[in-house]
Amino acid sequence: MNVIAELSIVPIGVGLSLSSYIAECERVLKAKNLVIHLHAEGTNIEGEFNEVFDAIKACIEAVHQKGAPRISTHIKVSSRTDKDEHMEERIKSVENQL
Amino acid sequence: MNVIAELSIVPIGVGLSLSSYIAECERVLKAKNLVIHLHAEGTNIEGEFNEVFDAIKACIEAVHQKGAPRISTHIKVSSRTDKDEHMEERIKSVENQL
Amino acid sequence: MNVIAELSIVPIGVGLSLSSYIAECERVLKAKNLVIHLHAEGTNIEGEFNEVFDAIKACIEAVHQKGAPRISTHIKVSSRTDKDEHMEERIKSVENQL
Amino acid sequence: MNVIAELSIVPIGVGLSLSSYIAECERVLKAKNLVIHLHAEGTNIEGEFNEVFDAIKACIEAVHQKGAPRISTHIKVSSRTDKDEHMEERIKSVENQL
Repeated sequence: MNVIAELSIVPIGVGLSLSSYIAECERVLKAKNLVIHLHAEGTNIEGEFNEVFDAIKACIEAVHQKGAPRISTHIKVSSRTDKDEHMEERIKSVENQL
Repeated sequence: MNVIAELSIVPIGVGLSLSSYIAECERVLKAKNLVIHLHAEGTNIEGEFNEVFDAIKACIEAVHQKGAPRISTHIKVSSRTDKDEHMEERIKSVENQL
Repeated sequence: MNVIAELSIVPIGVGLSLSSYIAECERVLKAKNLVIHLHAEGTNIEGEFNEVFDAIKACIEAVHQKGAPRISTHIKVSSRTDKDEHMEERIKSVENQL
Repeated sequence: MNVIAELSIVPIGVGLSLSSYIAECERVLKAKNLVIHLHAEGTNIEGEFNEVFDAIKACIEAVHQKGAPRISTHIKVSSRTDKDEHMEERIKSVENQL
């Protein structure tokens, strides 16, 4: 099953600047066989169900290893069994109606 | 205070195709004085704290009025008092470290 | 319209211990005409649509005023126009099927 | 690593009544070696990092198998490496300050 997920990681206890931790997570995601899209409130990920979860778990572990003692992670998963979902199609299907 | 928010609306009880409801929400947001960015898992919104919340509430009401009897809405708000946040800067500050 | 919301606030840049900021938010919510339930991952709030949003906004502002320069807030809103929702009923309707 | 997670599943395309699908997810979680707490906006789960993710994935699959063609799943994970987190302690640390 192909899914679209969104990942948002907030490292806690490392001060106000979080971008280096987000970048660490991006590096982990980019090394995987996934379509990813970084936006201002998280990263969208498209790929096979298990691979997407494995990548998200690896991202949390990498941010802890980089030094964040505490992380608040939000994950949204859009899954459907009737057809494969793709990020570009979802956006176009809305934009076509505007 | 300027904030960045993310809005994700899931109308319930209207079948499998949700894009027309998302489009209705986009039309409400576009009519406001806000920076918006539609992506595959929601819409990012940049603007003044109260105006952003007013727009989100108007969006929920518009989707009910379009016929959705039930809605599950997720909102993320990134607020800071030490500086104004802008969507483009947030993305660039991560990309500069990749 | 009566809604059920969930509020989760993560103050950033104030170190590892966040409970005093969550307690500040609880005090703001308790002063309002709302049903609230604190759990391990957030606070559920039941009340009239506009009053719930006003309370959430007051909570964000109070946590900034207490000294958090940056906050990541997640809000979930469950709204329906076909009937009023109540927290206890929602839980019972699931438990009755276990 | 012990984590606290929150799981919220919204089956799409199955009409307005979702409680039987939530109950299916509860049954999957209850069969695992985890502490779980059902509340009005989701289910909190406490347990080992990998076991929590395995349970969440099993829950999504079970809800699809029960007949939901599309699911919107929200997951929050609170992880920390400096100490084990427990749901009861988190709630008490806030309540002690009220």
